[in-house]
Formats: sequence, structure tokens, C-alpha cells
Amino acid sequence: SETVIKCKAAVAWEPNKPVTIEEIEVAPPEADEVRIKIVATSVCHTDLYHLFEGMHKDGFPVVLGHEAAGIVESVGSGVTEFQPGDKVIPLFLAQCRDCRFCKSPKTNQCEKAWSHRADAMSPLRSRLTCKGKKVYQFSGISTFSEYTVVKQINVTKIDPAAPLDKVCLLGCGICTGYGAAVNTAKVDEGSTCAVFGLGAIGLAAVMGCKNAGAKRIIAVDINPDKFEKAKVFGATDFVNPKDHDKPISQVLFEMTNGGVDYSLECVGNVGVMRSALESTIPAWGVSVIVGWTTLHDFSAPPGDLIAGRTWKGTMFGGFKSKDGVPEMVNAYMNKKLMVDEFITDNMTFDQINDAIEMMKHGKCIRTVLTFTE
Amino acid sequence: SETVIKCKAAVAWEPNKPVTIEEIEVAPPEADEVRIKIVATSVCHTDLYHLFEGMHKDGFPVVLGHEAAGIVESVGSGVTEFQPGDKVIPLFLAQCRDCRFCKSPKTNQCEKAWSHRADAMSPLRSRLTCKGKKVYQFSGISTFSEYTVVKQINVTKIDPAAPLDKVCLLGCGICTGYGAAVNTAKVDEGSTCAVFGLGAIGLAAVMGCKNAGAKRIIAVDINPDKFEKAKVFGATDFVNPKDHDKPISQVLFEMTNGGVDYSLECVGNVGVMRSALESTIPAWGVSVIVGWTTLHDFSAPPGDLIAGRTWKGTMFGGFKSKDGVPEMVNAYMNKKLMVDEFITDNMTFDQINDAIEMMKHGKCIRTVLTFTE
Repeated sequence: SETVIKCKAAVAWEPNKPVTIEEIEVAPPEADEVRIKIVATSVCHTDLYHLFEGMHKDGFPVVLGHEAAGIVESVGSGVTEFQPGDKVIPLFLAQCRDCRFCKSPKTNQCEKAWSHRADAMSPLRSRLTCKGKKVYQFSGISTFSEYTVVKQINVTKIDPAAPLDKVCLLGCGICTGYGAAVNTAKVDEGSTCAVFGLGAIGLAAVMGCKNAGAKRIIAVDINPDKFEKAKVFGATDFVNPKDHDKPISQVLFEMTNGGVDYSLECVGNVGVMRSALESTIPAWGVSVIVGWTTLHDFSAPPGDLIAGRTWKGTMFGGFKSKDGVPEMVNAYMNKKLMVDEFITDNMTFDQINDAIEMMKHGKCIRTVLTFTE
Repeated sequence: SETVIKCKAAVAWEPNKPVTIEEIEVAPPEADEVRIKIVATSVCHTDLYHLFEGMHKDGFPVVLGHEAAGIVESVGSGVTEFQPGDKVIPLFLAQCRDCRFCKSPKTNQCEKAWSHRADAMSPLRSRLTCKGKKVYQFSGISTFSEYTVVKQINVTKIDPAAPLDKVCLLGCGICTGYGAAVNTAKVDEGSTCAVFGLGAIGLAAVMGCKNAGAKRIIAVDINPDKFEKAKVFGATDFVNPKDHDKPISQVLFEMTNGGVDYSLECVGNVGVMRSALESTIPAWGVSVIVGWTTLHDFSAPPGDLIAGRTWKGTMFGGFKSKDGVPEMVNAYMNKKLMVDEFITDNMTFDQINDAIEMMKHGKCIRTVLTFTE
């Protein structure tokens, strides 16, 4: 574990440009760190957000990617939880199990996560070097690389029987959407739900509503091609806002005799966030913001909440990451959770720019990239 | 009960003008209605909001007032719950006990309330006439009158031993603030809270936090004269935003090592609403909007909620009105709730414009007006 590994990675040198496959150097893991061989990684909207929308002018060059699965290659000093050969999923949201956040049942945030992530996002603390230059580790992990180094609080061990080219999806999107319904909204038996946006996160939210016992799940998207897939995950009603002259909240009010019990915004658009809130029944409606944006503020009249609604948000679906991901893997292995159904395409890592383009144009749900030896 | 009663009432003929004491005619109660002799009424900010800020150009002439206590004078057909002589508190928020909202533990809204209130706000359905003209019944009740007629779902019977010139305050402000902390925020033992705005509702919120077991209650107001009273209700820390150059949320973050657990906005200002939200700890902070405004939308960046915060609102403190108000009266009678401490002034009903002016200029907490025979 003392050696530098030279391997392939996709480096984003600047915003709004294709990434390029480069040879990088991956440093040995230091204290409390783990070096992982990435076996499969998928592309998530958050990677694209950083590349195309985030305006982080200082966040380049960077190795993107945060939804993946792999095998421990070596561990740094003080690491007892992992051994070379363990199957693992890297976690962009840490769980140290020791801070006041980790010890509280009220949150899945980890207080150490933020300082550690700030470290990892600093080129000075990155373990990745390309052409003599340190590159940022996106979300503190960087999975668009054959090897990466992460803090041990940013990785979790999973069932050794799990197929890595499937469960890699549990590193972000599926857990985020599913948990938003189950953990954050706390959808209950017999309820009526609406899911806005039918990408992987929205589809996972639909599945979460279904598994929580919702009797009616209204799938909302301006792209009607998504409805067929939504049905697979449990959606019962399908609404395209473009088919209606009136606000979508009014459409849903009329469909449901006064509003849905739960709504989930899986787009990352502040106008949709307000529509999602206002589609819920005033007396007890709960709306969860799942989609991410820093471009605008959300807004609504105070009366929307005073009437009895609750507005929440979720990061990683409210799952405490190190505990939750292995449980989700087990649920998949026990056939209680769909994962394969999210995968629309399989490619080799070299085709990463094609995968990015497909996601950018909404032509896939999830593309899984695997490394060929 | 078949006779029209002629009595004194304060009529607001138009916005932004003093109200005038007039002789009005109060019709007999019709089916499911109750006619009440008002013994004591207080002035609440919502009355002022309607008079000075609400811009309801069509809501005049009106008899304002919705925080009061009185005695049943007569009942309409079909009313078995009340008899003449019962001590009662009128309820601006109805509880029919029969609709899907009333039957759910998730809300204190009543589905019938809105249609009934719409009725009562219509001059055609008002039971009050002045100078041959029907006048609106504010909030469906109108307590700035010696007598008024309300739906039986808009009134509740209380302990006959209760002093009406005290418990009249339980008709709105105290229940709203107290319940915001106890029922809506669900403040827990040992928590840290912040209350923004120290009018009657804010002070009641402070008392709610205290009774719920909060160990630290930070009272925030730009008028430091309010701090002494806040201390009486249980506030432990006092912050005047004018004493600081930085945002108040940052001040509270520093005071509390990362944010309060619960915050309550008792002002009705959308900027304060955002400050209150952002003063809570990201991982699990809960912020409740108690203050009312229709003038602007509230707003915040999605990340504020995605980090783990919850934004709620409350009407009448989440109390199911007909059930909750008699319980609050009992709590007062058993010395578990302060009420007298809110009353800064007592006046006769004829002095109502003085009471309105005092409240407008923040020179009182609550003024109780009583009718002299």
C-alpha cells in the first residue's frame, strides 16, 4: 500500500467541455484512508451539474463521479474496518458514527463530513495527480477513475455476493429518491403521492412511495416517454403539465379531491418546488425537495405553510450512509428493491463522454460504466 | 331567541380609519347557530392587519374582533351542545368533528370551516346590521360587539368558574403562540429555541418552549423593552438584531455552536421568516411560521432545506379549537399556564380606538375591553 498507482481516470479540465481520459497517479492511502479499485460507476446529474451548471470556476481540474462500487486495494494506518478485497461502495455523504449528528436519530448529516470534504475538495489534500498537477476529488471521492482514495468514513462494506455493476447505483440516485419518500416524507399506507421529475431519483421516489404502501402515485413529467418506466416502479397516474392550460397544482387538486398527501420534487427547479408544495393538501401535505440547485431561491406565500403544510429537503434520502447503503444492497439481493430496471445502458469507461451526453439530453435513466482490464 | 337584539358594536366602515361605536341589530340565531353576549374581548394584530394592511377593499363595513369570551344568550334549532348561560369562547377556526380534517390527528383545520367562514364573511349571510346595511362578520365571529351570532362549530364551552376577562385571550394569541411551540414545532426536552418577535404570540411561544422543557430560549426583538416581559415567560437569552453588524442567523449560530433546534417566527415578515429558518441547525432544525402576511412570498435557497431543515406553519397553534381551548382554560385554572401576565391594560369597550392605537404602536401586549352595563 506504499506505492503510487498509475491508472486511467476521466479528468474534467474546465467547465462545459468533454472530460478527457488521462493517466493519473493515485497516492497511497494515509491514516484513516482507504484506496479503492473502482469496478463500476454510473453518471449522475450532480456530476453534470458541476460540469455544466454549477459555475464553480475554482473546482477544476477535477475527477468527477460519486455513484460507484469497487474493491478495497489497500488501507492506511488505523483502518481496521476494511481489508483488501472487501467489496465496498464509496459514500459522498460521510458517516463517522462519532459526532453529535451521527449520534442523533434526527439526521443523516455527519459533522465531520463537511470538514473532511472541504479537505478532499482542496487540491492540496487530493490524492490524485495528473500531469504533475493535483486535481480536485469531486464530493471527496472521485469515482471516474480506476482507483481512488477516500476517508474511511466515506466508504461502506457490502455483501460480497452483490454484483458491483448493479449495486453501484445505490451510491447516490436510488437511495436519494427512495429515502426521500420513505425516510424524509415518511409516506404512509394508503396515501396519495405525487413525484415531479422522472429521472433515476424520481423513479426511485416512485418505488419508495410504492414500497411504503401509497395507494396512488401520480408521476409528473414534461417528457411523456418517461411514463412507461414510471409504471414499472409503481406509478398509477401520469400527468404531463404541457397537456394542461392550468397550473399543475390545480390539476392535481382536482384529480385528488383537494391535494396529494406527499409530493417529491426530483428536478432541481424552484418553480417546480413551489408547484410540488402547492399540489399537497393544505391541512397536512408534506413536500420534499430532492432536486438540487443553487441558481435560484424557492419561494411561496406564508399562507401555504400556515394552512398546515410542511416543506422539507433531503440529502441522500435521509439515509445514514454507512448503515443505510448495505441495507439497501441487502434489500436488492432479497428482491425487495429494484435496481436493474434503472440501467438503460452499459458502456466501457472509455465511452464516458457518450454517457454524459446521453444523460444531458435525457436519453437514459442510468448508464453503468465498467473498467476493462 | 326570536327577537332581534339592539346593542353596541364597533363598526369599521373603511380601511385606515378609526372604528366607530354604533348601535347595531343582531339577528336571532338560525339553525346550528348560537347567539353570544360578549363579556370581554381583546385586540389582536390580525384585527389591525385587516384594518390597516390587508387591502381587503371589499371587506368593509365590518365588525372586527375574534379574541373574546362570553355567555350564550340563545341557540338556534338543532343546537344541543349549548344552553343559554353557558360560558363560551368563540372560535375563528371551526371544529365540526365530522369532516375528514377533523377526524385526522394530522391537522387542526376543519373542512367545513372554510365554506362556513365564506358564508359568514358574506354580507348576505351576516347576522349583523347597522343603519339598515349588513356588515361583514370578521373571521366569521365579530367580537367587537355586545352580542354576536356564530355557527355552533365556531364556539366552545369552557369551565364556568373561568374569569372571562382573562381567558378571552385564549381565543387567539396565546393558543397560537403556545401551540406553535408545543404542537407544531414539537419542541423537546433540553432543546435550544429562538423566538422572533415578542408580541403576545411570541411571548406565548416562549412560554410553550419553556413548558416543553427547552433549556435555552433566545428571545429576539428589535424593541429591547420587550425583553423584561420575555424573561417572565421563560426566555434565557435576549438578542436585539440592531446591536449586531452581522446577520442575526450568524449571531445565533455563534451563540449556539451551529444553530438552534427550533425557531418560531412571530412577526409576519418574510425576511424574518428566512432569518428564523437559517438560525436553525442545518441537520435537524425546525422553523415554524406563525406570523401572517399576504404582502410578500417567503424564500430561501433549496440547500437550506436539503441540509436537513424543516419549514412549517401553524394556524391557531395546531390546536383543534373546540377541544383545545377548554383544555387551555383548564391549564390556566390549574396554574399551569400564564394568562394574566399578558394583560397590560384594561379598558371599557368605548375606549376601543385607544386600544387599537396602543397596539399599533407596540405600547401594550394585550388590552382587554369589557362591556359596562
